[in-house]
Amino acid sequence: MRAVGILGGMGPAAGADFVRLFVQACTRHLQDRGLPVHDQAYPEHWLVQLPMPDRTQALRRDPQSPEGPAAHLLQGAGRLAALGVRSVALACNTAHAWHGQIQAFFPQLRVLHIAQQTALYLKAGGARQALVLATDGTYDSGLYDAALADCGIAALRPGQAGRARLMQGIYEGVKQGDMPLAMQCFGEVLAPLLQHHGAVPVIMGCTEIPLALPQAPQACGAELVDPAWILACALAQDAYAH
Amino acid sequence: MRAVGILGGMGPAAGADFVRLFVQACTRHLQDRGLPVHDQAYPEHWLVQLPMPDRTQALRRDPQSPEGPAAHLLQGAGRLAALGVRSVALACNTAHAWHGQIQAFFPQLRVLHIAQQTALYLKAGGARQALVLATDGTYDSGLYDAALADCGIAALRPGQAGRARLMQGIYEGVKQGDMPLAMQCFGEVLAPLLQHHGAVPVIMGCTEIPLALPQAPQACGAELVDPAWILACALAQDAYAH
Repeated sequence: MRAVGILGGMGPAAGADFVRLFVQACTRHLQDRGLPVHDQAYPEHWLVQLPMPDRTQALRRDPQSPEGPAAHLLQGAGRLAALGVRSVALACNTAHAWHGQIQAFFPQLRVLHIAQQTALYLKAGGARQALVLATDGTYDSGLYDAALADCGIAALRPGQAGRARLMQGIYEGVKQGDMPLAMQCFGEVLAPLLQHHGAVPVIMGCTEIPLALPQAPQACGAELVDPAWILACALAQDAYAH
Repeated sequence: MRAVGILGGMGPAAGADFVRLFVQACTRHLQDRGLPVHDQAYPEHWLVQLPMPDRTQALRRDPQSPEGPAAHLLQGAGRLAALGVRSVALACNTAHAWHGQIQAFFPQLRVLHIAQQTALYLKAGGARQALVLATDGTYDSGLYDAALADCGIAALRPGQAGRARLMQGIYEGVKQGDMPLAMQCFGEVLAPLLQHHGAVPVIMGCTEIPLALPQAPQACGAELVDPAWILACALAQDAYAH
């Protein structure tokens, strides 16, 4: 087994939930192979949650600003590398705007890419289009558009009002612990989009969205895709790889 | 804010849940003080989950065996210390049998003690007796008996058959992902004890127990005390202390 790392704090609740998903992905890995499940069967893993400057704001202003997240992401990844981890997952979609920079700095690490992993998963399932729910920062960076296009999948997104309501659900809802508000915002954005586009896979492309959308009544019956779960499975696979 | 650490892997699901509790305790800390809640308001925190030899087995045989958890606990704590954390929580009750050893090795760390924190909490609430549900290892080590006695609280425990059923719920239930079995085991132990002792606080003295007991019908209306939550609050307090 290889030691792996999780770079979080974006936000902290989503980072904590990502560890839960990773442990669950490891359990699934063991069970699928008929291996015994006990404490000692899990790989060494590290989570660091740093007070990280806002990603969307930095992308809107200057992604390389010394006040932005770039330096914090690099020091977090550097300390994970020093601990001997081999693969790292970024527990934040928007932070993937700095993925290439982190990967280039630390060639000894494999930095997994949440949108590429998600696109590969959807491609394997035969999807031709997918609805992306994300932060403004993630939309601006074209993170999912590029990864989905590489797999021949068209990316659909809400209009401007819907995007503003998503940001409200993320920032005033989940990040401030107001889950009813988050459910309401996310559900209201989803309903008309599903009505318009039909039953397309819904990518919950911000780690805060899966903490509230699945409980919204408008999400009932929708094909919700959690990129954090897909990323957690990819990290578990790396941890168990020889 | 001070960086803090969590030493987990005992088991990994409980360690992941402890991070969730810590983040929730930080949110509560901020809200109680009317401070704004956003990603940057959370302290730096680290979780390490190591493949850790079984604690109860080691206590039954030789607590200082090189195959036991002592060396692993010390290397985990040592790496957390090297990362600059100031306070550490052990996300496992039974592992507190090695608390004194870890604390003595790393005087630069404050290693919180789950049973002492729980006893202080119950004392503040005026409790005179409490029911302890735990592993054989924790019972053998007298962890809660000593901490509760220091606070003038009598420790009640299940008989031998009940203790064996708790171990089954922990090892065959939670640690193997079989939550219905865990709920059944924990609930069956609790019901006759509450009938016999009346409405006493119930200390869920193994980090696996709160993952299943609260959902058991027999626990409905019981005063369940989660030492992991109390420990998470103490760690949050250290992180925000000046």
